[in-house]
Amino acid sequence: MILLTRKADFSSAHFYYNPSLSQAENERIFGKCANRNGHGHNYTLEVTVAGEIDPVSGFVVDLKQLKDILEREVVSVYDHRHLNHEVPEFANTIPTTENIAVAIWKRLDGKVPNAKVLRVRVYEMPDLFADYYGESA
Amino acid sequence: MILLTRKADFSSAHFYYNPSLSQAENERIFGKCANRNGHGHNYTLEVTVAGEIDPVSGFVVDLKQLKDILEREVVSVYDHRHLNHEVPEFANTIPTTENIAVAIWKRLDGKVPNAKVLRVRVYEMPDLFADYYGESA
Amino acid sequence: MILLTRKADFSSAHFYYNPSLSQAENERIFGKCANRNGHGHNYTLEVTVAGEIDPVSGFVVDLKQLKDILEREVVSVYDHRHLNHEVPEFANTIPTTENIAVAIWKRLDGKVPNAKVLRVRVYEMPDLFADYYGESA
Amino acid sequence: MILLTRKADFSSAHFYYNPSLSQAENERIFGKCANRNGHGHNYTLEVTVAGEIDPVSGFVVDLKQLKDILEREVVSVYDHRHLNHEVPEFANTIPTTENIAVAIWKRLDGKVPNAKVLRVRVYEMPDLFADYYGESA
Amino acid sequence: MILLTRKADFSSAHFYYNPSLSQAENERIFGKCANRNGHGHNYTLEVTVAGEIDPVSGFVVDLKQLKDILEREVVSVYDHRHLNHEVPEFANTIPTTENIAVAIWKRLDGKVPNAKVLRVRVYEMPDLFADYYGESA
Amino acid sequence: MILLTRKADFSSAHFYYNPSLSQAENERIFGKCANRNGHGHNYTLEVTVAGEIDPVSGFVVDLKQLKDILEREVVSVYDHRHLNHEVPEFANTIPTTENIAVAIWKRLDGKVPNAKVLRVRVYEMPDLFADYYGESA
Repeated sequence: MILLTRKADFSSAHFYYNPSLSQAENERIFGKCANRNGHGHNYTLEVTVAGEIDPVSGFVVDLKQLKDILEREVVSVYDHRHLNHEVPEFANTIPTTENIAVAIWKRLDGKVPNAKVLRVRVYEMPDLFADYYGESA
Repeated sequence: MILLTRKADFSSAHFYYNPSLSQAENERIFGKCANRNGHGHNYTLEVTVAGEIDPVSGFVVDLKQLKDILEREVVSVYDHRHLNHEVPEFANTIPTTENIAVAIWKRLDGKVPNAKVLRVRVYEMPDLFADYYGESA
Repeated sequence: MILLTRKADFSSAHFYYNPSLSQAENERIFGKCANRNGHGHNYTLEVTVAGEIDPVSGFVVDLKQLKDILEREVVSVYDHRHLNHEVPEFANTIPTTENIAVAIWKRLDGKVPNAKVLRVRVYEMPDLFADYYGESA
Repeated sequence: MILLTRKADFSSAHFYYNPSLSQAENERIFGKCANRNGHGHNYTLEVTVAGEIDPVSGFVVDLKQLKDILEREVVSVYDHRHLNHEVPEFANTIPTTENIAVAIWKRLDGKVPNAKVLRVRVYEMPDLFADYYGESA
Repeated sequence: MILLTRKADFSSAHFYYNPSLSQAENERIFGKCANRNGHGHNYTLEVTVAGEIDPVSGFVVDLKQLKDILEREVVSVYDHRHLNHEVPEFANTIPTTENIAVAIWKRLDGKVPNAKVLRVRVYEMPDLFADYYGESA
Repeated sequence: MILLTRKADFSSAHFYYNPSLSQAENERIFGKCANRNGHGHNYTLEVTVAGEIDPVSGFVVDLKQLKDILEREVVSVYDHRHLNHEVPEFANTIPTTENIAVAIWKRLDGKVPNAKVLRVRVYEMPDLFADYYGESA
């Protein structure tokens, strides 16, 4: 078994706000992130797939196909979007780095032919990232 | 004369939209950036100051003081903000990388004791940046 | 379970010298690092914590709190210090990248509420780093 | 147990072509990479070794010795070479990132005194890398 | 006047060999680079254009158009190519970093509407790059 | 004319202290940097030389020779050293980033055959650097 990791980027707006809490509680927990005009980030996504090397191609997974899957399932939905307002999974879920990693794992799980999506890593900033290995990990 | 450059970061939302143009024209010129929900970036600011080395300190400019000026004049105003909605210079000016560089130069010009603000560089993404040297350059 | 990783930086001096060995043996094993005036590095610390996502906040761990813990337990003790002379755990232990990773793991283990310190990674240079997963790993 | 990772670089030419397939099939699978004049990359290799810290030196592995092993076993063979034409393991194996990671693992396995080669990571580009943990993983 | 810089990448093979010199002289001057099987790099191109900000768009230059020009004039010609064998300007000119920067400047000069190509920077490796400002600089 | 830039690294200890000032004044001006045990950094040096491309080699300057000059004149003197205690130009000059850039320019000026040392850039940290262009700039 070998692992292959490909990165992709998306630039999105978001904010952190839990409507079941008061404004003051939101500000205490989320600080500047509670500003509902939103702010934004250049997110970096790393998707790691695991599989066997195909002896004909030398690939675990067709790179062009993997890039197309990431584009179709994630980048086209998240990039240049306001996550809270335009991405359905964040209508009622706060788009923290952790929740974004879980959401992307759910979008990709089972979509890559001949390989397993082992890990989704999401960087919100170069100094902060979340890793999700799926529900069985 | 020696140049000293210090970086700072801010994470902001923005969109590109010129209200004097039609929706179709905005989409043709600005593409995905015309989405008025906004998207966002981790911006990196590089400020270069020029001056003489103070023989007592060995500094062109006190680093703590320079950091405080960048924080007060730029980061506290732009970070975790929606540039179009919350930063006054972008009420009627599109917050492109070029216009952000000019706006930051105006915010900093003349504010650094004993040194000249020579250049403001703003990275919107690692592969795109603007440089502004002031009106006389 | 999800993993969250946060980075922090510290700039420190150190040298490698084992007083139970001769000067020649120290120089043979440690090369230029045996110079007891010390040299230094910009260290980068990556701390990975594992836990469950709190449904109220969307966080595994409060980011501000995690940053404060790293600052209090590690950065305030190591940054702008000479590790051999000023940090107690290196009074009789050589501050190699490996030993620094173990020492930071011991400083952080059990200190992060609602999450486990899974891994401590320390970069001495961009091309050299050590990972420690604790005694049970 | 602690892990130590060291990076090394090599710049090589390669192409992807399976002689048992037609030219058209090669171009469909490999796209621009099928050009048999070759193209090239700055590869980055990360080798992770696992072991115990030697209480005399504070090292898992002598860094100078590890660097020499990487130079002798990998860099001197791959760097400034055309992988398809000059490196024996790619005479009949397509030098994909996955196959390069496996080949380097085989070159290094058992060569590092007092430590196990746990993982070989090869970056072909900053946004694409393969990890191999050996046959037992 | 403001400067805008956009990066692009290409992965190419090349070698250094002057046919008017002996094999021994080529090896003395070019070392490992004289290997005529070729080796390769991930090149990074930075193109800096200078102009005035268009008050309608806020752009010095239309970013999509600039990207298309770089793709058409440079990336489609150099990427996944062997520079010595497939790119006409290197048929009789050694593709050093310096000569690549000059060749790209000639390819781009006068092609960007409403802006001047001020500087072409080419990185062969992260630690080596050439800058060319055109013949008048 | 074309510019070629090469990077080199050195890891050194230093502190900031002016003996003509009181301890309190040193601490006020230099903060944590005034700790006379010293701390340290991974410095990155970028040296830019300007010249004409030699039509025989395609080089402005022989890269191996340039690397050897940087090693002999700078890296062998600064790397794994305590700048205040072991490098003569800092016996009575505070080793700030600015003063290091000037000192390296003086060490290199006139030493590179057929090219002019145009600029010396020194990074103390990724977010702080000084540029020196020589006395005539």
